[in-house]
Amino acid sequence: MDIKVGRQAIQEATDKLKNWDRWGKDDQIGTLNHVRPEDIVKAASLIRTGRVFALGIPLDRTGPQTGLFGGRFNPIHQMLATGTDAIAERQDWNKIRYADDTLMLCVQGATHWDALGHIFYEDKAYNGYDAKLIDANGLNVLGIEHSKNKMVGRGVLKVAIGRGDFVIVRTGHMERCLKEGQWGGYAGGDAPGVKFENCYWCQEKQVAAICSDTWGVEVRPNETKEANQPWHWVVIPAMGLCMGEIFYLKELAEDCAKDGVYEFFFCGPPLLITGGTGSPINPQAIK
Amino acid sequence: MDIKVGRQAIQEATDKLKNWDRWGKDDQIGTLNHVRPEDIVKAASLIRTGRVFALGIPLDRTGPQTGLFGGRFNPIHQMLATGTDAIAERQDWNKIRYADDTLMLCVQGATHWDALGHIFYEDKAYNGYDAKLIDANGLNVLGIEHSKNKMVGRGVLKVAIGRGDFVIVRTGHMERCLKEGQWGGYAGGDAPGVKFENCYWCQEKQVAAICSDTWGVEVRPNETKEANQPWHWVVIPAMGLCMGEIFYLKELAEDCAKDGVYEFFFCGPPLLITGGTGSPINPQAIK
Amino acid sequence: MDIKVGRQAIQEATDKLKNWDRWGKDDQIGTLNHVRPEDIVKAASLIRTGRVFALGIPLDRTGPQTGLFGGRFNPIHQMLATGTDAIAERQDWNKIRYADDTLMLCVQGATHWDALGHIFYEDKAYNGYDAKLIDANGLNVLGIEHSKNKMVGRGVLKVAIGRGDFVIVRTGHMERCLKEGQWGGYAGGDAPGVKFENCYWCQEKQVAAICSDTWGVEVRPNETKEANQPWHWVVIPAMGLCMGEIFYLKELAEDCAKDGVYEFFFCGPPLLITGGTGSPINPQAIK
Amino acid sequence: MDIKVGRQAIQEATDKLKNWDRWGKDDQIGTLNHVRPEDIVKAASLIRTGRVFALGIPLDRTGPQTGLFGGRFNPIHQMLATGTDAIAERQDWNKIRYADDTLMLCVQGATHWDALGHIFYEDKAYNGYDAKLIDANGLNVLGIEHSKNKMVGRGVLKVAIGRGDFVIVRTGHMERCLKEGQWGGYAGGDAPGVKFENCYWCQEKQVAAICSDTWGVEVRPNETKEANQPWHWVVIPAMGLCMGEIFYLKELAEDCAKDGVYEFFFCGPPLLITGGTGSPINPQAIK
Repeated sequence: MDIKVGRQAIQEATDKLKNWDRWGKDDQIGTLNHVRPEDIVKAASLIRTGRVFALGIPLDRTGPQTGLFGGRFNPIHQMLATGTDAIAERQDWNKIRYADDTLMLCVQGATHWDALGHIFYEDKAYNGYDAKLIDANGLNVLGIEHSKNKMVGRGVLKVAIGRGDFVIVRTGHMERCLKEGQWGGYAGGDAPGVKFENCYWCQEKQVAAICSDTWGVEVRPNETKEANQPWHWVVIPAMGLCMGEIFYLKELAEDCAKDGVYEFFFCGPPLLITGGTGSPINPQAIK
Repeated sequence: MDIKVGRQAIQEATDKLKNWDRWGKDDQIGTLNHVRPEDIVKAASLIRTGRVFALGIPLDRTGPQTGLFGGRFNPIHQMLATGTDAIAERQDWNKIRYADDTLMLCVQGATHWDALGHIFYEDKAYNGYDAKLIDANGLNVLGIEHSKNKMVGRGVLKVAIGRGDFVIVRTGHMERCLKEGQWGGYAGGDAPGVKFENCYWCQEKQVAAICSDTWGVEVRPNETKEANQPWHWVVIPAMGLCMGEIFYLKELAEDCAKDGVYEFFFCGPPLLITGGTGSPINPQAIK
Repeated sequence: MDIKVGRQAIQEATDKLKNWDRWGKDDQIGTLNHVRPEDIVKAASLIRTGRVFALGIPLDRTGPQTGLFGGRFNPIHQMLATGTDAIAERQDWNKIRYADDTLMLCVQGATHWDALGHIFYEDKAYNGYDAKLIDANGLNVLGIEHSKNKMVGRGVLKVAIGRGDFVIVRTGHMERCLKEGQWGGYAGGDAPGVKFENCYWCQEKQVAAICSDTWGVEVRPNETKEANQPWHWVVIPAMGLCMGEIFYLKELAEDCAKDGVYEFFFCGPPLLITGGTGSPINPQAIK
Repeated sequence: MDIKVGRQAIQEATDKLKNWDRWGKDDQIGTLNHVRPEDIVKAASLIRTGRVFALGIPLDRTGPQTGLFGGRFNPIHQMLATGTDAIAERQDWNKIRYADDTLMLCVQGATHWDALGHIFYEDKAYNGYDAKLIDANGLNVLGIEHSKNKMVGRGVLKVAIGRGDFVIVRTGHMERCLKEGQWGGYAGGDAPGVKFENCYWCQEKQVAAICSDTWGVEVRPNETKEANQPWHWVVIPAMGLCMGEIFYLKELAEDCAKDGVYEFFFCGPPLLITGGTGSPINPQAIK
């Protein structure tokens, strides 16, 4: 495929790949519809040794947000009750000694799913919903809560992709950052990733989701000056493609290289954030 | 068993059930050690039809926190970017139209795991760790992040419990609240639940975790005036028992009643909240 | 004056009272322009005995927000460092023992100023600014920061109002709530307050600001079904009137009743919240 | 004075300068007791031309917190309602068009007062209060709310200091940062400031408060390796000295240089943050 990426290519891809109404006019989950119950049963047979890999990164102040994009910040974890209070006998009036805490985070600041209401094309979100339905109260449509039991199926880290797969793309970008001990421009800067034309491939393959160890799955710098993240412009609002970002893949990838098995049971439940543009997650790959 | 619940019974149970050093002096995950890889493989065989049940409740301002306990509040979801901004052309300088958001929540405010550093007995946490290691910076030991790939195995909703099971106790308490349309005293008030003596049963059965549709698993009012949540005093700091609370069980229970199968594959990954006293979750029961 | 309050009366008042361009096309502070330097000098002469009254209410979880309006919540105060940590020697690596904290609050949740970008009429804010300039990034115009050194002048609690005065209206509503020990519908419910026609009076008197011990200065229930807070519709976007709400007036009022002096030096500096719709404050009345 | 700064000097100064019980065993405001009503009346006479200077810095993400100290972060301002929502007709069900917002900030992250419970010496806070009274619930004693109507008096920017003065020390450090367009190590790094021995001077002069355009008033690097901020160790817990930090002084200083008048009416009310270690402020200097 030889595409000159730009506003025109985005419009063409939008027209060709639009899945609006494909799964009903009220559909909220897009390509997750590709996963059928029998796929989950089949995926379960990939659990052969009971090894479990956590694909989330830690949620703390050492996270990747360095201020390049949209006011995002790293998670802020604060205590409501501490062990030091306990031993200073500050809690004994309540006859229990405990610790408790809060977390404030950007929903898309670490390992996460994008919800389908995260990106718009012109005035529309996926399935033709008006963008104005996403207001200061949150996503009145297309919020992440609709996928609450949909993030289960076959995970694949390499070639031979099938319908309904959770495709995981490892670029090594995060591992380089972790090795170097600094995130630098990881969140919002240049990165390896899929090209714009990948939108056609995802549609043809009928993947359930595409996930990556980068900030935004697609290659950066952008392939055009006319749009920021041109692949996003198409895959979310037109196709309703489920996307996972900032996945930690080191241990899983090493294991796959060792046993030569690049498929596994995948389970990455989102939190039920009502009206959320996505959800922080810790997906599990089980072999 | 006929136990007079109180400080003395707590001390006795602590002495008898203490699992400190059982899995090594640096152990951070307690009873999750009961799950063996072969259990996970076997549990996978329970995935027979591909039905997935989400056991989390929504994270929003309609949650159960009504101020009864410890300054906890319901999740606060706020937008960083909206569709209304998009259509008002406020984002076009950046050549992308999108929505983005933040979430502030009490880690234990909705469906969640307790971490082992959540409860102390006198000056100690599980495995003998000093309670002072849990300070305003969070849990320097026994944080939820240590269980990042450990919440996978067989789930059971009824009798016939085996070693390494994730035991789920349905009392119907949450369903009553949801039916009545109000949480009332759900968070911190009276509730059905396990009795103090259940700590002996959990130890004997070698369960991986115990989860419930109530705020605190154990029965309330407390069985004694000498301690608040006496069962907690033992099962977390002495035994290192993994505990899940505020699980949504309605749909799963109805399905089990229908097909008569009360066991399933269970996958409930915590977020990697560094030093967290627990994690909000949306556990998956897969049949 | 006999006004039938409604959309038509709002339109008429808007047309008659509009102060757009009155203080220049870039003006950001509206009626605060009525205060002249000589007024401040004169007000200083009202400081006769050195008694200072704080007009703010406490910022904590006992505040008036009970969920009636717009997702507002009471302030959440959390510690970053504690004395219990200090005595448990958790801070000594840093060679200092200290306490530190954070505050999360709704800008308009307790005693506060409204900024002029807080209310719109149709698609416009004060001085003709397009409402779309107030987006998810905050108030790009008419933010509270523009009044950073403008909240100083003569305060008056009773009749004889002059140009540039900070007029304080005491209804006793807050004092009743405090006496009863509960806020009830204080924030967003029924309340005594000024009638719609008061907008004409404020314009004629050239007051700098109007402040009250209620949630919204104007009377509730609204005088019409056609608009919520009809007086707000006019005084902020058309007139640019500075407004202070939820003022604590008990001690000041008692003092004024005692000495018969109802005027004082007033100093109520807002925080410089860049793009804020207002600011929490603790105004000072000095006699 | 020739002091070898270190733990011993701190102990000596503590012994000599301790103001515990000086103003009663329940005193919560320390050196603010030096201000007498007649001082306020006299200070009012310094208001001669009605010029008002705001000494606060903006509260936004461009603030000075760069992560050097204690997990502090810059203010996070988020909208609850926007003008873009308003013009998209998302609010019209409520018959009012408006903007609303929240602010999350570190209490000591920008221009602020320190409360007397902010710093401990060994196990004690000012006036002999046990440090354990400052726990995860906040400052149960010595919180900033106690100074709610006490931050009023004569301000001075230069020599000739009197009892009860709010002494303002301008080093030019902030102005250099603002000129260079970057905060660098402003918050927690090296800085000009008062020497340790200044604690004796403050006691002798009976100042009400000392304020500066730096992060911590005292000189950095510390004058000793034995303590971090040795002057703080004495002036807050022993003396109960009121301290203001990160003051913006450029415009005030220029004005004083121009008219040769370095004294003014000072009014810097704290917010009533119940149990706060301090308060963000926007102090006013009025001439």
